[in-house]
Amino acid sequence: MTSTRERILESALNIFSNKGYHDTKLDEIAAESETSKGSIYFHFPNKERLFLSLVDQFADLLERRVTAAIEPLPPGMGRVQVALETCLQTFGKYRRPAKILLVQATGLGQPFEQKRNEVNDRFARLIDGYLQEAVAIGDITAVDSEVTAHAWMGAIYALVIRWVYTGEPEPQRIIDSLVPLLLRSVGYVNEPITNNQ
Amino acid sequence: MTSTRERILESALNIFSNKGYHDTKLDEIAAESETSKGSIYFHFPNKERLFLSLVDQFADLLERRVTAAIEPLPPGMGRVQVALETCLQTFGKYRRPAKILLVQATGLGQPFEQKRNEVNDRFARLIDGYLQEAVAIGDITAVDSEVTAHAWMGAIYALVIRWVYTGEPEPQRIIDSLVPLLLRSVGYVNEPITNNQ
Repeated sequence: MTSTRERILESALNIFSNKGYHDTKLDEIAAESETSKGSIYFHFPNKERLFLSLVDQFADLLERRVTAAIEPLPPGMGRVQVALETCLQTFGKYRRPAKILLVQATGLGQPFEQKRNEVNDRFARLIDGYLQEAVAIGDITAVDSEVTAHAWMGAIYALVIRWVYTGEPEPQRIIDSLVPLLLRSVGYVNEPITNNQ
Repeated sequence: MTSTRERILESALNIFSNKGYHDTKLDEIAAESETSKGSIYFHFPNKERLFLSLVDQFADLLERRVTAAIEPLPPGMGRVQVALETCLQTFGKYRRPAKILLVQATGLGQPFEQKRNEVNDRFARLIDGYLQEAVAIGDITAVDSEVTAHAWMGAIYALVIRWVYTGEPEPQRIIDSLVPLLLRSVGYVNEPITNNQ
């Protein structure tokens, strides 16, 4: 049984991702979630907070999936690889939340930029930590893990945003090309290199 | 002697980057450039077009500097490296235009997003072309140059945006860490690797 709060979030995700932030009315969310405006206001002080809660919800989901996927693995670059793959798979599976998180949240002003930066820093720290582990156990040589983490986030964002906008490149192509590219960028190669010269 | 149009763009850059897009008034730009609102409207139909012209101006500058820097070099990864360094140096030298191009242009709505995507695609194609050259002459093995180009743009954006917002990491650190990282990501290593294991 889903709670009222969850029903509201689910409907809000539908309507925000179809109509955009500005054109979404709380009345529509109330109707679709079979709740009421009063009930929405009980859980979320305003439309802005409701939207930001969706961003948080997706960031939480992403982090949960990544940490669950790497937990059984020993520290090292295997973890980094699985974290990247899981992150990209999750975006691929949830195009609408990805659109809200990465596209719509840009350009809505200060509180949204702040939330985006907060989520961004949270994942950058996660990557940074895994990279430092991999360096510590000797899987890769020392790297500027902070710069690397932000570079990777930027690379992931750029490709996921492009996919959300245009449908290209497809999630599987992003995973197949981007994950080896990012791993190589810290000097880690886990696949046979075919020299085509 | 600078033209009226150039004086207007120069003042617009100052005022937009200090006050932000929404709080900038054309009257202030007219006053600082010692022109008139009539004269601004003669060159730019409205505030939005004036702002977008600044984005174009900076993108043109960036492309001019990159192509001038690589022109004397033979095709190959040397060109790619110099293109990346020149791009990052140019951002480092022009923090205010970088701020306008990368930060303020986000979240102003459709025409701005479109311009940003246009500039982004233009530079992605530039990188894509250099990478294909480098593959063709055998400097690197085949890569998905389109995915690589967008990943690199995303990585560069992420770090430059971070620097514009927070002052960290400094442009020289970005160049020192990010350029080798990006080159390694396509399997190109131009520096001795020190193994610290």
